[in-house]
Amino acid sequence: MAEAKTQEIPYKVYLSEEEIPTHWQNIRADMKTDHRPLLNPGTGEPLKAEELEPIFCSELVKQELNDEDKFIEIPEEIRNFYKMYRPSPLVRAYNLEKALDTPAKIYYKFEGGNTSGSHKLNSAIAQAYFAKEQGLKGVTTETGAGQWGTALAMACAYLGLDCKVYMVKCSAEQKPYRKSVMETYGAEVVSSPSDTTEVGAKILESDPDNSGSLGTAISEAVEVATKSDGYRYVLGSVLNQVLLHQSIIGQEAKAAMDKIGEYPDIIIGCAGGGSNLGGLMVSYMSDKLNGKANPYFIAVEPASCPTLTRGKFAYDFCDTGMVTPLAKMYTLGSQFIPSADHAGGLRFHGMSPILSQLYHDGYIDEARAVEQTKVFEAAELFARTEGTLPAPESSHAIAVAIDEALKAKEEGEEKTILFNLTGTGYFDMSAYEQYNNGTMKNYVPTDEELQAGFEKIPPVGNEVPEE
Amino acid sequence: MAEAKTQEIPYKVYLSEEEIPTHWQNIRADMKTDHRPLLNPGTGEPLKAEELEPIFCSELVKQELNDEDKFIEIPEEIRNFYKMYRPSPLVRAYNLEKALDTPAKIYYKFEGGNTSGSHKLNSAIAQAYFAKEQGLKGVTTETGAGQWGTALAMACAYLGLDCKVYMVKCSAEQKPYRKSVMETYGAEVVSSPSDTTEVGAKILESDPDNSGSLGTAISEAVEVATKSDGYRYVLGSVLNQVLLHQSIIGQEAKAAMDKIGEYPDIIIGCAGGGSNLGGLMVSYMSDKLNGKANPYFIAVEPASCPTLTRGKFAYDFCDTGMVTPLAKMYTLGSQFIPSADHAGGLRFHGMSPILSQLYHDGYIDEARAVEQTKVFEAAELFARTEGTLPAPESSHAIAVAIDEALKAKEEGEEKTILFNLTGTGYFDMSAYEQYNNGTMKNYVPTDEELQAGFEKIPPVGNEVPEE
Repeated sequence: MAEAKTQEIPYKVYLSEEEIPTHWQNIRADMKTDHRPLLNPGTGEPLKAEELEPIFCSELVKQELNDEDKFIEIPEEIRNFYKMYRPSPLVRAYNLEKALDTPAKIYYKFEGGNTSGSHKLNSAIAQAYFAKEQGLKGVTTETGAGQWGTALAMACAYLGLDCKVYMVKCSAEQKPYRKSVMETYGAEVVSSPSDTTEVGAKILESDPDNSGSLGTAISEAVEVATKSDGYRYVLGSVLNQVLLHQSIIGQEAKAAMDKIGEYPDIIIGCAGGGSNLGGLMVSYMSDKLNGKANPYFIAVEPASCPTLTRGKFAYDFCDTGMVTPLAKMYTLGSQFIPSADHAGGLRFHGMSPILSQLYHDGYIDEARAVEQTKVFEAAELFARTEGTLPAPESSHAIAVAIDEALKAKEEGEEKTILFNLTGTGYFDMSAYEQYNNGTMKNYVPTDEELQAGFEKIPPVGNEVPEE
Repeated sequence: MAEAKTQEIPYKVYLSEEEIPTHWQNIRADMKTDHRPLLNPGTGEPLKAEELEPIFCSELVKQELNDEDKFIEIPEEIRNFYKMYRPSPLVRAYNLEKALDTPAKIYYKFEGGNTSGSHKLNSAIAQAYFAKEQGLKGVTTETGAGQWGTALAMACAYLGLDCKVYMVKCSAEQKPYRKSVMETYGAEVVSSPSDTTEVGAKILESDPDNSGSLGTAISEAVEVATKSDGYRYVLGSVLNQVLLHQSIIGQEAKAAMDKIGEYPDIIIGCAGGGSNLGGLMVSYMSDKLNGKANPYFIAVEPASCPTLTRGKFAYDFCDTGMVTPLAKMYTLGSQFIPSADHAGGLRFHGMSPILSQLYHDGYIDEARAVEQTKVFEAAELFARTEGTLPAPESSHAIAVAIDEALKAKEEGEEKTILFNLTGTGYFDMSAYEQYNNGTMKNYVPTDEELQAGFEKIPPVGNEVPEE
């Protein structure tokens, strides 16, 4: 069957640099919902722009709250930066299809072709740019697996901004070379929890061996930003503004698919904080929200951090230290930390409010949790057939794309599948090593463990139970 | 000055997949010289094809000895594999130019956009393909920095061939994750010297702590190939066939430059065994050999392994164990091992016979040796301006491209510079770390050290002193 396919469609579709979108696409303006505002955790009142400005750059606050403009112009300097590594290719996975002997057509957008190794650079340059425009000295952030920190370091080096990165301690120890990369780009990297912040010092006092979490690193980075003159905090996922910047992926993907006359039946993305699926889906979700088409969306998450599949849709903190505003999202509770047996990213206890709402409202059709060894099995097959060694995070999407392609084979249907290959796994080799030598473990939290997490969700904003 | 340049030329020029060359270009057919044959080290007689066939695949032997056909067709299956990661982009280094405030136009061909992290994949797939065509079970090889071994593992995984890699022991220890990558692609990786071969066991007997060299790893891989049924040896550089396969780089580069109406004044490549410069230069060198143009070629090598700048042009072994044929080339003597202070690749004691002859005859205009810290200084500037974190090897070419761009600025000339960014440095972060924390050392061998190396060059083939 696979042999019979014509190969008129090239392996890779590249748009020209002139075809890079001139605007970001704001899916919030298409959503048929009352957007749930961020809440002040003390008062339970919706946060005003001026309350967010000590944390985030002013322009980014505007983007965060914007639910009216369907398109927002991309400043020219950002578009010039995009030209260094974009448009990213849309790839037809001919060799994977052949290995699966499937009638399905599998496409992926490849976002790993830059030194940060992932799509994170798309938002890093935007956030750094607006910080620079505001005349700030620098930005602070957190990083787990390290792609976001690297991306931000690259963007700051390009613009001449200070960059301070709080890196989850166990990740910093597992991936020392990620730190070296960030330092090569001039960033200052601090292992979190650290004694450079109040929240970090407090954690270390009660638990000196604390190996860190994304939630703690966020608390530290926010504290430093709000207490330092000329600094703001930036975040690589979850936020509306991040999904906005990542819309460059989905707009390019649709433009490339249009060029070859394709429209996906199934759209798949891994989901940790939601930035890549949120970016990939944007044009197709707009079609769905406006009744123009009905593609099937699947969000894939690790079974060890099952935010959408087993979490609550509730107002919760975005960080462990409980210093951020409350966001309405799927959450496992701000104190939830996935097992250290879980090797990759996708560790955040919450989920983008946009994705959460779309999932709650049924526009994202399905969330699927996948166990770790299955993810690496898919990663290995992908590497051997398609060449590129995928990031563990991206391999969640690969695993489900393979399942869907095999289902299409079983059912004899020629489905068109699109997924996002968000990045490469070059800095994740200790996880691959575990998989290669058979020591990789699967971890699935028990209902009791999840219940303990849910009990830490604050009552504020959640007084009226969700039907 | 930099600001005044129009930006009509895009940042990246991509050819279409249909424009991937259908033939490799054989520069030997253009060279106005009597090609010096490989010699049997025992008899001093030119080696016949049948004497090479126990070591190399038959088709590759033909390519090795071919000095008649200017173009050799690329089999369709190899061209399909190329389509997974080629054509590689030709990039205009706008941001580096701006940082240098130079009137020079700097272009680079970027070969690092695949998981092997370098151009090596271009020859790996060709060599693996011909082994498969011959009905062999597998191939053996050596690797130093690891790009070649990874490339070969990827090619063999794709074709379903066994792959055994002898990896220089100190590199295997410095870069454990390279080993994991190769294993993910199903290769068997052995640290060299090892007790799996006679030559390895002999070395370990006299020096148990021997940290290995490329020359020793070659000896081991050749021994295993010749003693195992259904195996042949493959090599990632130096050989004529490898430069032939790498001609894909130069042909693409020229096609892309032609598209934007550019012709380089200066062409720069790093040179270890010579595969990347040999590949990059091919179309322009053909112009030069045929009197059509006169671009200026610069080969860049590490000051710690100064084969062209301080070596002898003589017949010598290609390996430490002295089991390979003799090749006429620039050499530091087969027993020369660069200092462990030298962090990157480019460690081979010899140089491609093609490049050696072209340099000897003055067609390669200049060889330049660069010290390590200067190389990393260039790498850092490149990373911060152009985004991509370059491999240490490639950064030798960057350092000289920067020098030439600054010279153009000084002289007020608008030169067009082309260099090869052969790969990325993602697996070289321990070297970057040394540079970042100021512990990196420069090493330049003394005349006495070099003299000791020269004394090991065999008399065979060198009876008549070179004028």
